[in-house]
Amino acid sequence: MPDLSTIVAEIAATMRAETARGTVADYIPELRRVSPDRFGIAVVTRDGEEIVGGDADEPFSIQSISKVFTLTLALGRVGDGLWKRVGREPSGDPFNSIVQLEHERGIPRNPFINAGAIAVTDVLLSGNRPREALGEILRFIRFVAEDEAIAIDEAVARSERETGFLNASLANYMRAFGVVQGQVEHVLGVYFHHCAIAMSCRHLARAGRYLAFNGRIPSLEAGIITPDRARRINALMLTCGHYDGSGDFAFSVGLPGKSGVGGGVLAVAPGTVSIAVWSPGLDAKGNSLLGRIALERLARAMQWSVFG
Amino acid sequence: MPDLSTIVAEIAATMRAETARGTVADYIPELRRVSPDRFGIAVVTRDGEEIVGGDADEPFSIQSISKVFTLTLALGRVGDGLWKRVGREPSGDPFNSIVQLEHERGIPRNPFINAGAIAVTDVLLSGNRPREALGEILRFIRFVAEDEAIAIDEAVARSERETGFLNASLANYMRAFGVVQGQVEHVLGVYFHHCAIAMSCRHLARAGRYLAFNGRIPSLEAGIITPDRARRINALMLTCGHYDGSGDFAFSVGLPGKSGVGGGVLAVAPGTVSIAVWSPGLDAKGNSLLGRIALERLARAMQWSVFG
Amino acid sequence: MPDLSTIVAEIAATMRAETARGTVADYIPELRRVSPDRFGIAVVTRDGEEIVGGDADEPFSIQSISKVFTLTLALGRVGDGLWKRVGREPSGDPFNSIVQLEHERGIPRNPFINAGAIAVTDVLLSGNRPREALGEILRFIRFVAEDEAIAIDEAVARSERETGFLNASLANYMRAFGVVQGQVEHVLGVYFHHCAIAMSCRHLARAGRYLAFNGRIPSLEAGIITPDRARRINALMLTCGHYDGSGDFAFSVGLPGKSGVGGGVLAVAPGTVSIAVWSPGLDAKGNSLLGRIALERLARAMQWSVFG
Amino acid sequence: MPDLSTIVAEIAATMRAETARGTVADYIPELRRVSPDRFGIAVVTRDGEEIVGGDADEPFSIQSISKVFTLTLALGRVGDGLWKRVGREPSGDPFNSIVQLEHERGIPRNPFINAGAIAVTDVLLSGNRPREALGEILRFIRFVAEDEAIAIDEAVARSERETGFLNASLANYMRAFGVVQGQVEHVLGVYFHHCAIAMSCRHLARAGRYLAFNGRIPSLEAGIITPDRARRINALMLTCGHYDGSGDFAFSVGLPGKSGVGGGVLAVAPGTVSIAVWSPGLDAKGNSLLGRIALERLARAMQWSVFG
Repeated sequence: MPDLSTIVAEIAATMRAETARGTVADYIPELRRVSPDRFGIAVVTRDGEEIVGGDADEPFSIQSISKVFTLTLALGRVGDGLWKRVGREPSGDPFNSIVQLEHERGIPRNPFINAGAIAVTDVLLSGNRPREALGEILRFIRFVAEDEAIAIDEAVARSERETGFLNASLANYMRAFGVVQGQVEHVLGVYFHHCAIAMSCRHLARAGRYLAFNGRIPSLEAGIITPDRARRINALMLTCGHYDGSGDFAFSVGLPGKSGVGGGVLAVAPGTVSIAVWSPGLDAKGNSLLGRIALERLARAMQWSVFG
Repeated sequence: MPDLSTIVAEIAATMRAETARGTVADYIPELRRVSPDRFGIAVVTRDGEEIVGGDADEPFSIQSISKVFTLTLALGRVGDGLWKRVGREPSGDPFNSIVQLEHERGIPRNPFINAGAIAVTDVLLSGNRPREALGEILRFIRFVAEDEAIAIDEAVARSERETGFLNASLANYMRAFGVVQGQVEHVLGVYFHHCAIAMSCRHLARAGRYLAFNGRIPSLEAGIITPDRARRINALMLTCGHYDGSGDFAFSVGLPGKSGVGGGVLAVAPGTVSIAVWSPGLDAKGNSLLGRIALERLARAMQWSVFG
Repeated sequence: MPDLSTIVAEIAATMRAETARGTVADYIPELRRVSPDRFGIAVVTRDGEEIVGGDADEPFSIQSISKVFTLTLALGRVGDGLWKRVGREPSGDPFNSIVQLEHERGIPRNPFINAGAIAVTDVLLSGNRPREALGEILRFIRFVAEDEAIAIDEAVARSERETGFLNASLANYMRAFGVVQGQVEHVLGVYFHHCAIAMSCRHLARAGRYLAFNGRIPSLEAGIITPDRARRINALMLTCGHYDGSGDFAFSVGLPGKSGVGGGVLAVAPGTVSIAVWSPGLDAKGNSLLGRIALERLARAMQWSVFG
Repeated sequence: MPDLSTIVAEIAATMRAETARGTVADYIPELRRVSPDRFGIAVVTRDGEEIVGGDADEPFSIQSISKVFTLTLALGRVGDGLWKRVGREPSGDPFNSIVQLEHERGIPRNPFINAGAIAVTDVLLSGNRPREALGEILRFIRFVAEDEAIAIDEAVARSERETGFLNASLANYMRAFGVVQGQVEHVLGVYFHHCAIAMSCRHLARAGRYLAFNGRIPSLEAGIITPDRARRINALMLTCGHYDGSGDFAFSVGLPGKSGVGGGVLAVAPGTVSIAVWSPGLDAKGNSLLGRIALERLARAMQWSVFG
């Protein structure tokens, strides 16, 4: 088995030098301001060792990766009742498609497309004020990431709100079918804000430990969720975590993972490590281009694929 | 860790007694004749041990499970060139949907929906006569299953041909876009015949060993495909192996697997075992109802999920 | 040629006695309160004669029929530039479908489905405050109907607003593509209010005269629009005026017409008459059931079909 | 009212000189061989006068215009029972779309898209051999066109058959749902052959007389169909006769009409004239580009629009 530190360093160096870096997301104006040259990677092992490379300590907008944490919280609150409102199947459509909602009477296909994550946010909002729901999300992320400084980038949140008409369309559509039950404005407010949370690779990799290690954070001796639930969230990340590129990510990387349009990817090798990579340039399906390539190399070199 | 033999025996007994058994496929008339009471299970370990339960030695129509073997052969023939003609993404549609083909100019989403498997069959037919292509498929399956008696059920093949208008529609559609290149009649003939291959759980589990064990059959000391290719086929089985129920199978079972409307499922726990189960009754999405339940219990009891 | 007064009286009597009356729209709570027993009809000839039957002077919610008037005003304001934002083809989808918008980048298929009418409303709002835009619509309708008392039913407008999530979804979707350019809240406000205008059959038939008579109201000696524009609006009513039942309406009635979920239908026999009927019960596609039957009998008896 | 002969002559001259002529259909290889310079027009009045211009006596492939005649025959055979198998609504999709068939369980939206015309052909074939069905179609067309020399262009029929995979896909799809009931090969054979009938504008305009004149051919004193049926076929031509450009044709021309990819259009001004135009270059939706422009000018100059 090769040495993890060496490999991480090599990957960071190679990715830094790569010229084909994809395209930085431009549909949220604030995200456009990030330099495409950035690349970060962090790997956390069972015993808490952190191997990092590149810009691993620079915070970036986690965007859709936040959907993993809101899903965890919503399952904690309503358990399997969640699956009455959200499906568990890959969508075969882009992340912001509304076609599927019309065909399936307002039930989003899975919790990781935008519509599904908005429905999950609605669950977290139930009985709470927006500020409380957001507080709960932030507290959870700060705890599992072991960093009290993690915060929302208000400029990004505002930018999303001002341009988030497709998400408003999805939310209203689900509201028409009772899948979203709260006030649409509140649900979107919370959704835009949790997508605008900024984290570094190091903190994100830490935050993924409970998924890598059977629902527990070994070094904290903290049980976050049951092993069963961790397993299932991992399954959802593998089948649905990269929008309409999920099949390809499973095919080439072979790890459960969740990407965000900020260029981050959280991935786990169950029982072994939690990993975060970041490179702002995206491929045609909205997933980090170098992020996927870095993870493919890492998983192959370390033989971490869940598929043998 | 519990004892595998005990668990397999318990599962076989419980499944035998189960009253809610799903619905036997009726769109292929010959398949209707199978008794819904059947249940079989077989597990093959790395060192070749075979643990079986129920009707594990009764042959059944493997139907779409044959798509795993034809994919293996087509990749052997044209390598990654295959992916110009067939995608690698879950479809979000029923197994026989044609909508996706129209939206994506005749390229099927993956090799495990009907359209994709027909395109894969076309690759195997290229330069061959139908009889030769079928012979190649049968020889491969007999070899990896270690049973020279495995054969095509001609009554089923005929029945499929006589009622296979949706598949004829798919094949003609792809022919219009040059994705299928051979004569439609020939391609369908080979496709209907390989779907009509009959195998027992024992032989099917044996046939899956090369996917479970990095492309090799350890007890035969035979290398079938590269470890990389085995890993990738497993990834495709996990994301696409159960049609529009693939997400749910990953969520509840957590193993790469491929189902057929004959009620069989082939699944692998990479590095550990190859498994086949059979129960003819299907759920609403066309997958074996008790097959999934049995695999879920087995994977949970043995902690075989790839997701931790 | 039979006598028009006799036929209108006969139709009113028959429709009054009919027992199969369709289903009163229930998705807007206020509309539910209307009795399904109502039936009204009014026919206005070129020389201004008004032949009425049943509840011809009872106001009802014109709903989507208002789209004819807002289209007329929007064409007056931006001319053929309107067709950059709205198509002119039948949709093949229900009135509130959003699937088509996704497939055609936010451009609604025609001005008579909800999405198209919302885009048309946005045009009327451009540079105006909502109150001004509404005032312009009301003034136009009062003028062509020759009744200054025509007003908005505020209870209906409020009811639409509170339950109009699908329309909010459509408006936000189009806003994302720049097809709607004003504030979504304002556009929806004006849209819900003009749909809530209440008119009687007599006034509605009067209001349709400019479409029946080459853009002019003969008895007022008033030119409203050019003959060409009247012809084209009639063409749009014929191909798109009854949502996904437009083909059937053309087939059975043979007149340009526009229906509303309040149970009204405005139809014209070009050069001959303007007609309004009202019966609150709807068929499966959301068009007045007895309205269509009454118009079919009338057009057949008087040989008014535009198709020979 | 301007003089019809003068106008037809002017239109023929202008269209002959036009440089933007659209694109000759190339998906049927034989059709590619026609020169885009051709333009023909023929108008037949109630008293049998024939006003022609350009290449009015040169035969061309009528293609989908044949669907008007097969619909007439199928209605003669099974009456309104036809509407159990074929809808009467515009499709909102291209002429060869299969998406709609999947969404509506194999029932084509109308008799003028390919799927619908194939289903109509199946009705004509019921109880007949292909040769007999074709004979019936030819005899009917020769009778209404008053030309016994009208024939099938076998090279075109063969060319369609060899490249008609999308149509084979549609036919097989409908066969799966029992909408097509005969042998798919036979149905397609008859379909491809009736689409390959060659006619001149003069003969085509004659053939449309029964639709223009209440089901009768006045100069022959022959009743072909009831006035009611003529009216309804005209309604279908207006709402569905130009595929996904039907709304636009109604909007700009205002006459019931049916186009074919050979570049022909048959149109009728009910009670007044039957018209045929021909120009091989097509617009983006597959309808004759100059054909539509010529009809728009003619209808406007003569004030023939059915919409006032």
